[in-house]
Amino acid sequence: MIKEKDAKDWREKLHGVIYESETKAGKAFDVALLFCILASIVVVMLDSVHSLHSRYGGIFLALEWIFTGIFTVEYILRLISIRRPYKYIFSFFGAIDLLAIIPSYLSVFFVGAQSLLVLRALRLLRIFRIFRLVHFLSEMQFLSVAVVNSLRKISIFILFVLTCVVILGSVIYLVEDDSSGFTSIPQSVYWAIVTITTVGYGDVAPATPLGKFIASFIMLLGYGIIAVPTGIVTTEMAQQAYRNKGRANNACPNCGKEGHDTDASFCKFCGEKL
Amino acid sequence: MIKEKDAKDWREKLHGVIYESETKAGKAFDVALLFCILASIVVVMLDSVHSLHSRYGGIFLALEWIFTGIFTVEYILRLISIRRPYKYIFSFFGAIDLLAIIPSYLSVFFVGAQSLLVLRALRLLRIFRIFRLVHFLSEMQFLSVAVVNSLRKISIFILFVLTCVVILGSVIYLVEDDSSGFTSIPQSVYWAIVTITTVGYGDVAPATPLGKFIASFIMLLGYGIIAVPTGIVTTEMAQQAYRNKGRANNACPNCGKEGHDTDASFCKFCGEKL
Amino acid sequence: MIKEKDAKDWREKLHGVIYESETKAGKAFDVALLFCILASIVVVMLDSVHSLHSRYGGIFLALEWIFTGIFTVEYILRLISIRRPYKYIFSFFGAIDLLAIIPSYLSVFFVGAQSLLVLRALRLLRIFRIFRLVHFLSEMQFLSVAVVNSLRKISIFILFVLTCVVILGSVIYLVEDDSSGFTSIPQSVYWAIVTITTVGYGDVAPATPLGKFIASFIMLLGYGIIAVPTGIVTTEMAQQAYRNKGRANNACPNCGKEGHDTDASFCKFCGEKL
Amino acid sequence: MIKEKDAKDWREKLHGVIYESETKAGKAFDVALLFCILASIVVVMLDSVHSLHSRYGGIFLALEWIFTGIFTVEYILRLISIRRPYKYIFSFFGAIDLLAIIPSYLSVFFVGAQSLLVLRALRLLRIFRIFRLVHFLSEMQFLSVAVVNSLRKISIFILFVLTCVVILGSVIYLVEDDSSGFTSIPQSVYWAIVTITTVGYGDVAPATPLGKFIASFIMLLGYGIIAVPTGIVTTEMAQQAYRNKGRANNACPNCGKEGHDTDASFCKFCGEKL
Repeated sequence: MIKEKDAKDWREKLHGVIYESETKAGKAFDVALLFCILASIVVVMLDSVHSLHSRYGGIFLALEWIFTGIFTVEYILRLISIRRPYKYIFSFFGAIDLLAIIPSYLSVFFVGAQSLLVLRALRLLRIFRIFRLVHFLSEMQFLSVAVVNSLRKISIFILFVLTCVVILGSVIYLVEDDSSGFTSIPQSVYWAIVTITTVGYGDVAPATPLGKFIASFIMLLGYGIIAVPTGIVTTEMAQQAYRNKGRANNACPNCGKEGHDTDASFCKFCGEKL
Repeated sequence: MIKEKDAKDWREKLHGVIYESETKAGKAFDVALLFCILASIVVVMLDSVHSLHSRYGGIFLALEWIFTGIFTVEYILRLISIRRPYKYIFSFFGAIDLLAIIPSYLSVFFVGAQSLLVLRALRLLRIFRIFRLVHFLSEMQFLSVAVVNSLRKISIFILFVLTCVVILGSVIYLVEDDSSGFTSIPQSVYWAIVTITTVGYGDVAPATPLGKFIASFIMLLGYGIIAVPTGIVTTEMAQQAYRNKGRANNACPNCGKEGHDTDASFCKFCGEKL
Repeated sequence: MIKEKDAKDWREKLHGVIYESETKAGKAFDVALLFCILASIVVVMLDSVHSLHSRYGGIFLALEWIFTGIFTVEYILRLISIRRPYKYIFSFFGAIDLLAIIPSYLSVFFVGAQSLLVLRALRLLRIFRIFRLVHFLSEMQFLSVAVVNSLRKISIFILFVLTCVVILGSVIYLVEDDSSGFTSIPQSVYWAIVTITTVGYGDVAPATPLGKFIASFIMLLGYGIIAVPTGIVTTEMAQQAYRNKGRANNACPNCGKEGHDTDASFCKFCGEKL
Repeated sequence: MIKEKDAKDWREKLHGVIYESETKAGKAFDVALLFCILASIVVVMLDSVHSLHSRYGGIFLALEWIFTGIFTVEYILRLISIRRPYKYIFSFFGAIDLLAIIPSYLSVFFVGAQSLLVLRALRLLRIFRIFRLVHFLSEMQFLSVAVVNSLRKISIFILFVLTCVVILGSVIYLVEDDSSGFTSIPQSVYWAIVTITTVGYGDVAPATPLGKFIASFIMLLGYGIIAVPTGIVTTEMAQQAYRNKGRANNACPNCGKEGHDTDASFCKFCGEKL
């Protein structure tokens, strides 16, 4: 009986360390995990540099297996310390955690599978869970709510931009020669995207006066319509900041009005204590 | 008599399917049409890639004629299912629909007319009509009203930018040599647009110290004045969001008009208490 | 006596046509003048294209002298139709008007003075005076007031950016070799401006890993701080829109509160007729 | 006794001239100092241009030692005119002032130490202290408070961008060949930063259709998410402008605290009627 209770205690403690970050041990685990993720990604990145690979390839391989081992142990611990393992396995972070360790094991059987290790970069997303430690959570929530609320409007905007670049890319393909790099419509659409987003690589650029005129039009269009997503997000954020203000303090018990600052002790409309 | 009524029924049903999207059949028609438009544009785009054209040119040609056939049938159906066909023919979408099928038929008589098929990309604009299906209409309205309301201010801004690039392009033409690519004033103005919109291809770039100084000035100017259209659109959107909020909440019980501010206690049109 | 009055009448009429744009003749004069300015600039621009100059050089020269004649007559008319000619001569537009005709006359004595004709582009600024015709004045005022009010904050921002690019340009000069194009500190500062404003010509680009790291930092800095001028201008515009709202309608005669919409007939706070 | 008082007077006067800028002498000192800083930086910059160095190297060296002398005297004066010299030495500006004179002295012993003179550019930061003279202080405070308040949200945003570029850079490394310039993951991540910030040098650019597709995605992502920092800063500025307005208008007559909203009728801290 006592043993069973101990086991339960042990599992609960583990759960607290791995999944929560309120306790000292939980915080330490999160920080250590983040360090391992960052280190493993740095190793994968450096290993891709030819000069470093030829010199330190062996060390990098060893480190990669060490990190794979650590992440495998972490994955198993996560499975056994949670009540419903299926929920974790099929969650977003569960899938990413699995994706981070599979390529190493696959590389034993398939040559080249190791290159999929770059998917480990997805684990960087865990960095956003670490924010709890430093009280950045409300800021993250603010941003994500604002972005999610803007998503519909922004997706319409992106669709509009895509329609524009397909049409304008098709037109420039009619106008410009192959020699300037406009060898096909997809290539021309790619160029239109490079231009409308004001990136401007310069690998493809119009050579004829008419082409340059159309390009100028696309540039000014891109320069002007960047205002639209900015306006959307800003308006959404301003509304949310206003709502947050009202939500932070309850409505005034006397007059019922909202919109008080977070540091308000008295209602600014009727003077009642909040 | 019954036959006539049937004919009327048939026409009305067709109208509902083609022009409306509330019914199941209407939605299916819209989605199928959008799929055809997207597919036909993809075919035109892929056909423009030389390597694909030489291999699959025949298939692409066949597909193009199939899509032309479908769009022709659609155009005829639209004509016969509407009461006043002229209204459709001379409408914006009617013109585009016609533009999308003409090039194929012209290509029989004129060589090269087929290249005008890229105009079919304009049909992509129909995508914005599909939004009704997924309740994006209010978001689209929000954006288009905000953009339309900002248009006057933004057109002044664009005129200001155009004046700037003509003046600055003329000045850089005096300063820089032909060898750097500043061969004429129009070319220099083109470069000024590329620079002020922060696109920066690099095909033309100043070589002299004074030219680089002027270029730096243009860049900083462009970097700074992009704030202006953004400010215009954001302010417009914020005002509209504020008005929408009032509209959602309270129509006047007396005159029924909407668009009151959120802090309004009385109708601004008739003075009735809200 | 009557003759004198006639002369006065004649002068006043001329003044009305040239300086004002309320009358039909005034509007016609403004539109004709704008057309001449645009045409003269197009001629100067086309004349700078070598291939066009060798073919139509004579025609362009003739047109230039015609436009110079027209502008000279206009300048003289402006002088005699105004009461205090000195006020016009030393005004901003007076100086530009003079600058637009001088180069042609100078070119008779000095070879090459004609290239200063590009200064005629400054006359394009007159385009902003034409806006009166199409009721864009309030929009222009809105923009210019917002920009003027933001100028102090934006100049601080530009100073901050300039300080950044001098410091970062100096640092990259220490890091990168001459062979990558970083041949001097001014050149490196120029590159830093190209990078921080996200123009990115690519004529100078870092080659070493450390240089690329610093470049990445500058890019992210530039990507982030573009928010600052946008925020300044947007806030200024929002405040101005709010003020305009209050200014447009008088304060409520009953409760004295402001902030009514332009289409309001009744006070939204107390229901009093405005 | 009188002598001692004189000494005290002399020190206090010096302090007033060097550290303050209310008096005429203080203003003159600040302006002269700023001129010296700008001149010394211009000399360092010009000296780095090879053609100028070979011609005027001797003059530049002399000027550098003159400026070093001036700054050394200024540093010593600052030390003796302040009560607690340690406070100045370890302050931010104290450290920069020291950094500005050390390289010159080091260059006597170490060849090449002179190149560290570019650190003198940091002294440009003193320019922001000069703003007091022209009453730009409140604007600077406005900007710095808005930026500091936005810092948390913007740092989350930068982290998100960094995560994106690591992931997307890794993916493009898998897709593209070495021949296009994607020789390693760090190089690919660098390219992703160049692309997402819309700088677009063009020294590295995708060559395969899939690579171009991914690049287009990154560009549109970068074009869209630039809205986020702008939204953050704008919202923060708008809130601050709103608070400032309240502060300017009404300090509480009871508790004297400021920062009330413009629609506040009662003090939010003590409930007193405003």
